[in-house]
Amino acid sequence: MKVSEIIDRLGITTFDLATDPEILGVTPIEATEPQMLSYIEGSKFAAQIATTTASALVLPLDASLQQQATDRGIAWIADAQPRKLFAQVIALFYQPFRLSAGIHPTAVIDPSVVLGDAVAIGAHVVIAAGAKIGSGVCIHPNVVIYPDAQIGDRTVLHANCTIHERTEIGPDCVIHSGAVIGAEGFGFVPVPEGWFKMEQSGSVVLEAGVEVGCNSTIDRPALGTTHIRRNTKIDNLVHVGHGCQIGENCILAGQVGLAGAVEVGNRVIMAGQVGIVDHVKIGDNVIASAKAGVHHDIEAGAIVTGIPAIPHKLFVKATAVFNRLPEMYQSLRKIQKQLDNL
Amino acid sequence: MKVSEIIDRLGITTFDLATDPEILGVTPIEATEPQMLSYIEGSKFAAQIATTTASALVLPLDASLQQQATDRGIAWIADAQPRKLFAQVIALFYQPFRLSAGIHPTAVIDPSVVLGDAVAIGAHVVIAAGAKIGSGVCIHPNVVIYPDAQIGDRTVLHANCTIHERTEIGPDCVIHSGAVIGAEGFGFVPVPEGWFKMEQSGSVVLEAGVEVGCNSTIDRPALGTTHIRRNTKIDNLVHVGHGCQIGENCILAGQVGLAGAVEVGNRVIMAGQVGIVDHVKIGDNVIASAKAGVHHDIEAGAIVTGIPAIPHKLFVKATAVFNRLPEMYQSLRKIQKQLDNL
Amino acid sequence: MKVSEIIDRLGITTFDLATDPEILGVTPIEATEPQMLSYIEGSKFAAQIATTTASALVLPLDASLQQQATDRGIAWIADAQPRKLFAQVIALFYQPFRLSAGIHPTAVIDPSVVLGDAVAIGAHVVIAAGAKIGSGVCIHPNVVIYPDAQIGDRTVLHANCTIHERTEIGPDCVIHSGAVIGAEGFGFVPVPEGWFKMEQSGSVVLEAGVEVGCNSTIDRPALGTTHIRRNTKIDNLVHVGHGCQIGENCILAGQVGLAGAVEVGNRVIMAGQVGIVDHVKIGDNVIASAKAGVHHDIEAGAIVTGIPAIPHKLFVKATAVFNRLPEMYQSLRKIQKQLDNL
Repeated sequence: MKVSEIIDRLGITTFDLATDPEILGVTPIEATEPQMLSYIEGSKFAAQIATTTASALVLPLDASLQQQATDRGIAWIADAQPRKLFAQVIALFYQPFRLSAGIHPTAVIDPSVVLGDAVAIGAHVVIAAGAKIGSGVCIHPNVVIYPDAQIGDRTVLHANCTIHERTEIGPDCVIHSGAVIGAEGFGFVPVPEGWFKMEQSGSVVLEAGVEVGCNSTIDRPALGTTHIRRNTKIDNLVHVGHGCQIGENCILAGQVGLAGAVEVGNRVIMAGQVGIVDHVKIGDNVIASAKAGVHHDIEAGAIVTGIPAIPHKLFVKATAVFNRLPEMYQSLRKIQKQLDNL
Repeated sequence: MKVSEIIDRLGITTFDLATDPEILGVTPIEATEPQMLSYIEGSKFAAQIATTTASALVLPLDASLQQQATDRGIAWIADAQPRKLFAQVIALFYQPFRLSAGIHPTAVIDPSVVLGDAVAIGAHVVIAAGAKIGSGVCIHPNVVIYPDAQIGDRTVLHANCTIHERTEIGPDCVIHSGAVIGAEGFGFVPVPEGWFKMEQSGSVVLEAGVEVGCNSTIDRPALGTTHIRRNTKIDNLVHVGHGCQIGENCILAGQVGLAGAVEVGNRVIMAGQVGIVDHVKIGDNVIASAKAGVHHDIEAGAIVTGIPAIPHKLFVKATAVFNRLPEMYQSLRKIQKQLDNL
Repeated sequence: MKVSEIIDRLGITTFDLATDPEILGVTPIEATEPQMLSYIEGSKFAAQIATTTASALVLPLDASLQQQATDRGIAWIADAQPRKLFAQVIALFYQPFRLSAGIHPTAVIDPSVVLGDAVAIGAHVVIAAGAKIGSGVCIHPNVVIYPDAQIGDRTVLHANCTIHERTEIGPDCVIHSGAVIGAEGFGFVPVPEGWFKMEQSGSVVLEAGVEVGCNSTIDRPALGTTHIRRNTKIDNLVHVGHGCQIGENCILAGQVGLAGAVEVGNRVIMAGQVGIVDHVKIGDNVIASAKAGVHHDIEAGAIVTGIPAIPHKLFVKATAVFNRLPEMYQSLRKIQKQLDNL
């Protein structure tokens, strides 16, 4: 594909097309294959323009970087959101593997299942009674769907994942390999003889555009729903407990864990290995740093860090002092001695 | 089902049956469907009696709450353990999906496998030589059982879980989707050239009533057993290392991790993301707070928090001061200056 | 097997063969079956020689322990690396279950797949177009392999694991049950309307001798590779983000998480639940203690602990003071008062 075609297809308005090289693919800036397109994130990486073998670059709206590329005879395209533009270019050259429409003969599908148009169902998939599968859905091999689940149009279920009874997955979702959606919440009532099981009669609802990472688990509650709103993205090995309510456009990074009935606003970001205690409420736009342990409600817009989580700025200051605690302890003893000697 | 029938079936002795409504199901207290039964946990939620649309309530033994319900003409049943009673009521209206007895024709079962009565084996299940499957066992689709495993009566194995060689699972257990029981422990001997594999010839034993959450992993040791005693409940994404010994009626919440050869007493509670270092001994009734990192033996009855874990009360006090470290540091400098100026 | 045969087969040069008992198997030192071989790690366990029922022992090069064993008439073998020797002895008596060579009739293998000699492919395995499977490979039931993956000679894939498109797994690797290798990295570009997906066109490369634990996940990047070098061992429930580069002979213990593009040297050890922030560089021979949170580059040979991770020795000292913070706070107030009263 020529750079001019990329420009046409993406409607790019800022570019240098002095050369119009044929592009074969997209690479990291340090790779050395010829006829490739690559990406410079910002002026920090300016030096790499001098050495790259890329034939074309995605650049930010930075006149100096653009001039450098032009000087080396490298075609470039630029945008105020260069990272998004680069993602768009990748998508021109690469689309992930999808099964072709059709039902593999080894799939076991209950006769009551309602199938949309152009569904692709792989080998050894099992779909139980009452399930509804939307149009354009792609179900990779060895997926198991329990009774009465609903899968929205164009949603992709990767290999070996399990969708439990009554789960409702919206359109354009991706459930990655090994994820388990809608299994029983961890509900046990303490009684003198041990633990009495509370059956989990609720269900899980994922709205449009939700992604759930590999081997992540989202449990259903005793009553009502565990609900994840549209376009929220969940990474691998994340646990969402029974009855959680998660807003739109949130990011839950790898190994995050939410205990039961947590309420999360919109556009919240939880970095890796964050943990949230049950029944906590997290406001819109909160950022929880990696490994934060959240025990109390967090107001909208806060950035929190630490175990237990406190405002990020305070954590940074307190941690700086923590590292000096041994010398502080000595100072304190010395002061006490000085004082006693007065 | 009429409330009077619920009372009969559960042998309830404290109730108001002035009205005897027909109940269609069980809901959260804030839901608004008609003819539902709901639950008030304690006086903190008293205000909700005034507004609920529920036709019947489960209440604690609290005369004031009971009077409020009676005044609104809401039938109620009460018990000293209201949460357990509510769980019992849910179980009258809801039972989780189980396969009907029978063996799906796509299951691959070695001829040497011994099957109990009324087993239910789903599509694409694989059971290797020498396994013994008890009566009433339910094995959901795509489960794999390695050679010589034993599954006790009435145990349920959910979809896509894997039971490794020689594992013994007792009766009335539930292994949730994607869990892996009895895989090789992580045993490597450091040698000058790297790591030398120690084969894991032991096995995993789960006693009666144990539950293992989705995608959790319980490894077998080089020698002997990894042993989990009766009625211990394990949540999702938990890792139990090779050779651990866990007592009865313990709770391991989501993403807890136990390194090898940890010994845990009875009725121990580990909150989410707790980690226990190898060979540590945890006494009966210990509570480890969320994210605690336990590096040393913990005596029976202790409540521990923090990394490394210390007594919970000390942690709370020390943390309160941690948040004031920046001001403490300033105070110390000021004092030093005052002192130097004397 | 007689002890003399063990000595012959392993080429052992230090031993006492006064008796040459027939050994039936290998047990923990405290077990009581007869005709067993067991292991004494060092002088700390000397007392157990007096009481063990083992017929033979693996001992370190410790004359006193050896004399004790001789005095009790217990045959022994000894080595400068006794733990390795014990692992070698276990391997004489025990080898983990492997499928016999052959392809189960229920496996679904695309005609374009290239199969080596003596492959063993279990029931319900699915292998997509373009995959290459080396000689002696063992693929347990219900594994799914996406298009164009390569599996090296003698590698074992356990049940229910998933190998995604273009993944290259070297020879002599073990991928444990439920692991997912090569799925899409978690790549989303923040844009005003939410998150824009960056397709992940790269792949995962595992070199020879790598092990990946149960339900662990190793993601592929947008461009280039996620690369794990030879003999690195990864435990259960570990997350390796897109684009990470991990050296040789590393150990990643249970529930470790690496965000994207982390660079790890050779012989690095990460204890359980360690987390590494994206783009961090970890030098050779680094040890990160359990639960450490690494936010900055770590130089070769360092031992780090804490969140954020600091040198281990400093952490131990600072933590000791942390536990005394409440009393320090009181001291400081008292000193201030004393000073004010001067």
